[in-house]
Amino acid sequence: MTDIVPLGLEPAAHPARRPAPPLPDLAAGTVWIVGAGPGDPGLLTQLAVRALEQADVVLHDALVGEAILGLAGPAARLEDVGKRGGKASSHRQPAISERLVALARQGLRVVRLKGGDPFVFGRGGEEAEALAAAGIPFRVVPGVTAGTGGLAQAGIPVTHREVGSAVTFVTGHGSAGRVPEGLDWQGLAAGAPVLVFYMALRTLEEIAGRLVEAGRSPMTPVAIVSNASLPDQRVILSDLARCARDGRRLSAKAPAIIAVGEVVRLHETLGAWQITGAEDLRVAETRADAPPVRQQAAAG
Amino acid sequence: MTDIVPLGLEPAAHPARRPAPPLPDLAAGTVWIVGAGPGDPGLLTQLAVRALEQADVVLHDALVGEAILGLAGPAARLEDVGKRGGKASSHRQPAISERLVALARQGLRVVRLKGGDPFVFGRGGEEAEALAAAGIPFRVVPGVTAGTGGLAQAGIPVTHREVGSAVTFVTGHGSAGRVPEGLDWQGLAAGAPVLVFYMALRTLEEIAGRLVEAGRSPMTPVAIVSNASLPDQRVILSDLARCARDGRRLSAKAPAIIAVGEVVRLHETLGAWQITGAEDLRVAETRADAPPVRQQAAAG
Repeated sequence: MTDIVPLGLEPAAHPARRPAPPLPDLAAGTVWIVGAGPGDPGLLTQLAVRALEQADVVLHDALVGEAILGLAGPAARLEDVGKRGGKASSHRQPAISERLVALARQGLRVVRLKGGDPFVFGRGGEEAEALAAAGIPFRVVPGVTAGTGGLAQAGIPVTHREVGSAVTFVTGHGSAGRVPEGLDWQGLAAGAPVLVFYMALRTLEEIAGRLVEAGRSPMTPVAIVSNASLPDQRVILSDLARCARDGRRLSAKAPAIIAVGEVVRLHETLGAWQITGAEDLRVAETRADAPPVRQQAAAG
Repeated sequence: MTDIVPLGLEPAAHPARRPAPPLPDLAAGTVWIVGAGPGDPGLLTQLAVRALEQADVVLHDALVGEAILGLAGPAARLEDVGKRGGKASSHRQPAISERLVALARQGLRVVRLKGGDPFVFGRGGEEAEALAAAGIPFRVVPGVTAGTGGLAQAGIPVTHREVGSAVTFVTGHGSAGRVPEGLDWQGLAAGAPVLVFYMALRTLEEIAGRLVEAGRSPMTPVAIVSNASLPDQRVILSDLARCARDGRRLSAKAPAIIAVGEVVRLHETLGAWQITGAEDLRVAETRADAPPVRQQAAAG
């Protein structure tokens, strides 16, 4: 290769080298709606860390892990506003928005910390609307969403060369434990080669069935990635025909992100050399057709 | 509201409070493929900053800004491997992958820094494949992609309540300046209420035309967000019928991210109270039908 130059001891001069600008401060009486990313604290943004360090109060979802909450300052009050006592967080949404407004009006520095990205199936838009309606200045700090970053930690790029012109993110979670109403399954199935489902473990059977009905091959590869980017990340490889059964049989755990499409096959190539999540993270890969698992299932 | 408690001076005890784990090191002879996010250095992840601080050499795209490159250690060599002299980066892809392998084999700590997320239209999958084929251990550090985080900084949530069950990300950049081949426009148009196009400024006329042909209303709101999350971010609001013309008339600049769907309307509600990007960032909003602009266009 011609353009490799031997690397000397001194770095090449680069016109761009200059100090990074300081990060902004979380001001009193304002709210930052912050994405916590898929789980690995290393995937927090600089602004997210800043927010935690400066917050007087952090309202966080149940899914945000201890390693991330540990970044909050020692004087910060942590409030878990996630699902509680069987009451879905959706019922609590207006109460959370009201509380954000009330805390900001007390002159506090308020952080609303949500798993993933606040604007990707995170209902951050509703909270932002409530703050805007109340005249509370807010900042949205986007996070790495599990649909891209979580799958990346499982060796699955959501786009890849010719199979990669489009990718669709879908929530699998509607009301009453069903898939959301109003989805156009024909359009979904045909519109993008790669489909990524959030919160879809309980509705996977219906999702897979509808996609096959709509024309996707039953052999389309599927990956169920639980606890993406965390030390206990687990990847189940299957296909549309078998993924719901495999998920049940292998006890797939929430939170999970589910990828449908040929890119899932890259897990095998990339996984062998990929360093992921924390230092000691190992991807526990469970192939649905692997003999030990099949025997176990047959025996059970 | 019943569950507001007066906030005292001492924080509530929280079982989760414990120190955050240390970040991993970029080891000699390995490569980290790192997403730089949409542009604001505050949206870099902790792992991305770690990578820049520890790198011996950073191969970066042309689009990665000075404020981010400034985070590299003083001894790091910075190499711009983006588009050069009219030669598209796609032609350089094999050379970049080879260089990553060669640098890692020299025992260096190598960072491949890409705008946005390496696996969202970033060709990071190809580089990861090349590294895996050569037996070079690599880590993928996901970034905030412009399609979520960039739009968030323009007050546009890609998902929102009932209009938010699905969102599709599409690259607008195929070969020879055309839209990518093989896209199913009927499926795209019907599959998700919100469509986000990357690198689509030059193909916007064809994209908008195809979406209308496929059944999307010509009145569907469109936002063209240039330099998302940076101090010179600029938002052009339009609709499918007029967006290509408005983009030309108002000199929309690359890099731009283009959002199609009802969520674009939230820009107006959220923008007024949203703190974005850097401290001094102001969203320059240009409404296509705003009188001053129309007069200017009529005069010119």
